[in-house]
Amino acid sequence: RWKGSIYKLMYKEFLVFCAVYLFFSVFYFYVNQAFTRWWGQYTSFPLPDNLMMVVSGNVHGVDDRGRLLRRTLMRYANLSSVLILRSISTRVRKRFPTLEHVVEAFMTTHELKNFESLHSDFNKYWMPLTWFSNLAAQARQEGRVRDDIALRLLMDELNNYRAKCSLLFHYDWISLPLVYTQVVTIAVYSFFAFCVIGRQFLNPEKGYSGHRFDMYVPVFTLLQFFFYTGWLKVGELIINPFGEDDDDFETNQLIDRNIQVSMLAVDDMYQNLAPVVKDKHWK
Amino acid sequence: RWKGSIYKLMYKEFLVFCAVYLFFSVFYFYVNQAFTRWWGQYTSFPLPDNLMMVVSGNVHGVDDRGRLLRRTLMRYANLSSVLILRSISTRVRKRFPTLEHVVEAFMTTHELKNFESLHSDFNKYWMPLTWFSNLAAQARQEGRVRDDIALRLLMDELNNYRAKCSLLFHYDWISLPLVYTQVVTIAVYSFFAFCVIGRQFLNPEKGYSGHRFDMYVPVFTLLQFFFYTGWLKVGELIINPFGEDDDDFETNQLIDRNIQVSMLAVDDMYQNLAPVVKDKHWK
Amino acid sequence: RWKGSIYKLMYKEFLVFCAVYLFFSVFYFYVNQAFTRWWGQYTSFPLPDNLMMVVSGNVHGVDDRGRLLRRTLMRYANLSSVLILRSISTRVRKRFPTLEHVVEAFMTTHELKNFESLHSDFNKYWMPLTWFSNLAAQARQEGRVRDDIALRLLMDELNNYRAKCSLLFHYDWISLPLVYTQVVTIAVYSFFAFCVIGRQFLNPEKGYSGHRFDMYVPVFTLLQFFFYTGWLKVGELIINPFGEDDDDFETNQLIDRNIQVSMLAVDDMYQNLAPVVKDKHWK
Amino acid sequence: RWKGSIYKLMYKEFLVFCAVYLFFSVFYFYVNQAFTRWWGQYTSFPLPDNLMMVVSGNVHGVDDRGRLLRRTLMRYANLSSVLILRSISTRVRKRFPTLEHVVEAFMTTHELKNFESLHSDFNKYWMPLTWFSNLAAQARQEGRVRDDIALRLLMDELNNYRAKCSLLFHYDWISLPLVYTQVVTIAVYSFFAFCVIGRQFLNPEKGYSGHRFDMYVPVFTLLQFFFYTGWLKVGELIINPFGEDDDDFETNQLIDRNIQVSMLAVDDMYQNLAPVVKDKHWK
Amino acid sequence: RWKGSIYKLMYKEFLVFCAVYLFFSVFYFYVNQAFTRWWGQYTSFPLPDNLMMVVSGNVHGVDDRGRLLRRTLMRYANLSSVLILRSISTRVRKRFPTLEHVVEAFMTTHELKNFESLHSDFNKYWMPLTWFSNLAAQARQEGRVRDDIALRLLMDELNNYRAKCSLLFHYDWISLPLVYTQVVTIAVYSFFAFCVIGRQFLNPEKGYSGHRFDMYVPVFTLLQFFFYTGWLKVGELIINPFGEDDDDFETNQLIDRNIQVSMLAVDDMYQNLAPVVKDKHWK
Repeated sequence: RWKGSIYKLMYKEFLVFCAVYLFFSVFYFYVNQAFTRWWGQYTSFPLPDNLMMVVSGNVHGVDDRGRLLRRTLMRYANLSSVLILRSISTRVRKRFPTLEHVVEAFMTTHELKNFESLHSDFNKYWMPLTWFSNLAAQARQEGRVRDDIALRLLMDELNNYRAKCSLLFHYDWISLPLVYTQVVTIAVYSFFAFCVIGRQFLNPEKGYSGHRFDMYVPVFTLLQFFFYTGWLKVGELIINPFGEDDDDFETNQLIDRNIQVSMLAVDDMYQNLAPVVKDKHWK
Repeated sequence: RWKGSIYKLMYKEFLVFCAVYLFFSVFYFYVNQAFTRWWGQYTSFPLPDNLMMVVSGNVHGVDDRGRLLRRTLMRYANLSSVLILRSISTRVRKRFPTLEHVVEAFMTTHELKNFESLHSDFNKYWMPLTWFSNLAAQARQEGRVRDDIALRLLMDELNNYRAKCSLLFHYDWISLPLVYTQVVTIAVYSFFAFCVIGRQFLNPEKGYSGHRFDMYVPVFTLLQFFFYTGWLKVGELIINPFGEDDDDFETNQLIDRNIQVSMLAVDDMYQNLAPVVKDKHWK
Repeated sequence: RWKGSIYKLMYKEFLVFCAVYLFFSVFYFYVNQAFTRWWGQYTSFPLPDNLMMVVSGNVHGVDDRGRLLRRTLMRYANLSSVLILRSISTRVRKRFPTLEHVVEAFMTTHELKNFESLHSDFNKYWMPLTWFSNLAAQARQEGRVRDDIALRLLMDELNNYRAKCSLLFHYDWISLPLVYTQVVTIAVYSFFAFCVIGRQFLNPEKGYSGHRFDMYVPVFTLLQFFFYTGWLKVGELIINPFGEDDDDFETNQLIDRNIQVSMLAVDDMYQNLAPVVKDKHWK
Repeated sequence: RWKGSIYKLMYKEFLVFCAVYLFFSVFYFYVNQAFTRWWGQYTSFPLPDNLMMVVSGNVHGVDDRGRLLRRTLMRYANLSSVLILRSISTRVRKRFPTLEHVVEAFMTTHELKNFESLHSDFNKYWMPLTWFSNLAAQARQEGRVRDDIALRLLMDELNNYRAKCSLLFHYDWISLPLVYTQVVTIAVYSFFAFCVIGRQFLNPEKGYSGHRFDMYVPVFTLLQFFFYTGWLKVGELIINPFGEDDDDFETNQLIDRNIQVSMLAVDDMYQNLAPVVKDKHWK
Repeated sequence: RWKGSIYKLMYKEFLVFCAVYLFFSVFYFYVNQAFTRWWGQYTSFPLPDNLMMVVSGNVHGVDDRGRLLRRTLMRYANLSSVLILRSISTRVRKRFPTLEHVVEAFMTTHELKNFESLHSDFNKYWMPLTWFSNLAAQARQEGRVRDDIALRLLMDELNNYRAKCSLLFHYDWISLPLVYTQVVTIAVYSFFAFCVIGRQFLNPEKGYSGHRFDMYVPVFTLLQFFFYTGWLKVGELIINPFGEDDDDFETNQLIDRNIQVSMLAVDDMYQNLAPVVKDKHWK
């Protein structure tokens, strides 16, 4: 009789142990993936720093045409990143609810007409980059880009920039596979089901002994609070990493920084060098 | 006597614990590998975005010959990805059951004849890419590609594109090694064997005490349901990631997108630039 | 008295738990490394696809000299991979037991003489690649390779190809460090030692109670069978991944495929393009 | 009655087990991430070795203008790394509290004026690199850089250098996401809460039995000491990897090394070759 | 009273469990990092294979000057790797205790004078590579390197080679951070402290029961032996991976191989091609 009761006790324990272990494994795996995605998305954020440096060094001319070419090239690059960010960040979407709002800051109306004249079911963020490519080829023919190798350098940096935009597009398009989401959901619910059952079959026994129960309540509540909030946070991160949470990227701030330094680098700083003088260690 | 019964109890527990732990380890490893493969295959999907940008920027001419060259080059690239996808995705295979169906959308009959005149035991997806390489060399000789560096750029992007097709081919050819599949299978079966044994040697003891058993049944069923379905889902993902499941890639949709934007970029958008005007921040 | 016996029971349990946990950790680590090596070796397999494409596109001439150059270059590349595979795959070694057998398929006798005239304690698989490099330089001087950038492209692809051969050479040369092998061996033996001890101190107690023992035997046997076979499989994979197991790479088949498609691509397909005609979506 | 007490005992144990397991999981994940960041930051440290080698080999002239160009280019590169390190390393900040201090060692006053004339909310570490790009373009026009390919090589190495500065900037800007910090904090506090509770509900029972308690105190203290110190160390590493701890990078020492070898390589060693004579193995 | 003793028993168990779990986690993490470093160092070993191939293909001339240039370039590359290996491998240090010993095999006295005329607090392994860069620029001016693209190829391969030397230098300079070493040390000592305590509080109880103790001694000894030896082995690997252990790299052997094949490839094999004849599959 006594032996049997121990046995059943352990058996229950064992089932609970399995469930808990499984839950933690799946949880860990999921959190790990979510974090990897989060960092991957951050490092995929398209920054124009390389591009502006090669535009500044390889598209020449201090006259208006030269400035126009350099500024327009950088504007296309920034426009492309705004177009992709509009589709994945709620903050950027709020700032640019329609393409008209983008026109105000990054586009001419003629460009908008060109943009809308082509129909595609998918995001057309790559179009300004194709304009960049064509304008660079034009600049080469005008002799503003002095040689083929400089043009190649522009195209290489353009491709690097495009690759990052493209990666963002895919991170947005392909979420973590549905099957994992389902497995996690089942695991979470089954875990809480066990907790509820665990509480329930404690209740009658608490009735027998009638003491000490109150002491465990806060512990349990603490745990639950921890799981629920942690879970919700992670869920938000996965569903919308470019959302409006405090931890999210300051996407709009970055957009402003990018267009600002782009213009500084290719216009104000173009061939604006301090005189080259002997440094302090010159012998 | 009493000591002995505890002992045996623990011993059984311990064996079960080992089996469960091992099961979870192997399961975790396998799921991890499966996920890595899944994401690897997704990021290997050949997208023509880079290729179309360099074709648009470096193969020149607004006349029919120029358009023909650009469109044919992009058609070859897309044809190659269709050929490799036909052999790994059931959906694409359904859409293009024979090469005749491919001809309708992506190939000329003359090209099909050329394609079939060469015999190889392996997938010949690389053939249209060799055509691309030869056609680009021809375009260089005609002066449509203006310099050697532009030709090199075309070849580099072609190789990047080919590398992705090739990776898909290998992911398809080499599945997870058989030994892991066997280990997992043994682990799963031995786990369920333990479960069955566990139930069986509970039954007689339940006969002694005769109560509480019904309560555990749903728990067990829940667990089993969870394992079975999770397992089957993961199995499907591994065996056929380009299958017809809801979570699979929208392969056919991507094929359509790729050929559509390829043609837009190299034909409609070629040298079709909006006038370059001063932007709003011009000083 | 009773307290003491529980205590010792737990203590034994605990020691066994430690051993099992450690065993699984080490096992997991080892299997993980073995798998990573396996996949690394597979993706290092030198495929001539890129090389043949650039040879076909950049070494010109439909006459015999042109064909000779293209075919010889590809033959050198394939010869190099055969030389490295002979030293790491038992299957390839069986097919080519001596260099004379290689001569029949991949080498001329004059080349063999050159090959053997240089003495080195290490594998000389890099020699045909140096021949490739020299022959390509010669082709450039004859004007068969039309410009320096094309020659550079050939050299770049050659280096990619060589890097893969070199990686195979190192995977073969450096096995997993001896210290891990020793740790794993100790862990496995100590685990089985525990199992044997576990059985032994169960035996006397089984003598007391005299029942139920037979029931556990198959469970134990199952576990042992699982460990032994899994272990041996993994061991084979590590010791000889290019061996003769069913799960190993079809190395000889790949060698045949490589030389076949190499020759197809650089000879039969050279400048053999279907006429470029308007596609179905032409507007 | 007795059965009930075991039960509650196990239940408490189980809760504690969960908390402990969770704590270790989160701890492990966090430490792992912290280590990865640490190593990532180290390998991102911008070293001028490659850049100085290409400047030495490709910017020509033994006269003052040649020396000036080479030295100024390397000074710009080193200045850029100092500017980014000032914002992330407390040691470097202490050494260069204001830009005036930087001027003493790495900048001319004219350059400082240029630097400060441009306003940006973000770190302007990229400005000296843009100067580098412009000065290299000037050197090309003067014929000091002899061909376009050498200029391209300079630009490529510049971009590699800039990428590392940029990565440091981002590692500094984006810390581990706040949500993980919160999760860890909650986990740590809940763990210690459990410990305190554990002690508390032991106290009354120790009152009953009244012995052996002293024995556990050092054990617990040891554990606590271990956790606290380990935790604080890891926390410091995450918050300020370029801080003033003994384990931190010798940032100032590296800055000195970098400027020193830069100047040696591009000035003292320029075209200063030992005579090329036959080596000992010459046949 | 009885209840209390179980309770305390579990409490001790639990503490021990925590310590063991933590120990294994930290141990696993550490071993994993050590292994990653080990493999990283191996793959960073600078092999001259790529460099010698491009030197052989791009630095021309069968006369003495041509041979001198090629041989000297490769000697510089090998010298650089010897200089870095001297500072990290005890075996190489033993073979070349002073720079005079290096002169005998790899350096001229004039080069040694140049080498020593520059003072730096850090390893000067990069100096021969700068000589390489300057000598290659000279060879270009003499027309031995025929075009700028070939020179670029030489510089690119030189940079790859330098990157590997540099990585070795950093692996040597930056060991695993001190904080982890401390954590591991504390963990190891606390684990053994627990073991000793575990034995001690078993001793009195063994005095009560007075039997079975001898049986556990070999088990414990086995475990301890396992931990100690495993630990020492891992420690050696981390502290000195290029040491004199049986498992260490055959560094001296590799140095000999590298200089030997370098000279073979750039001298004996230069333009020494077998006649190009039709292969067996020629149609």
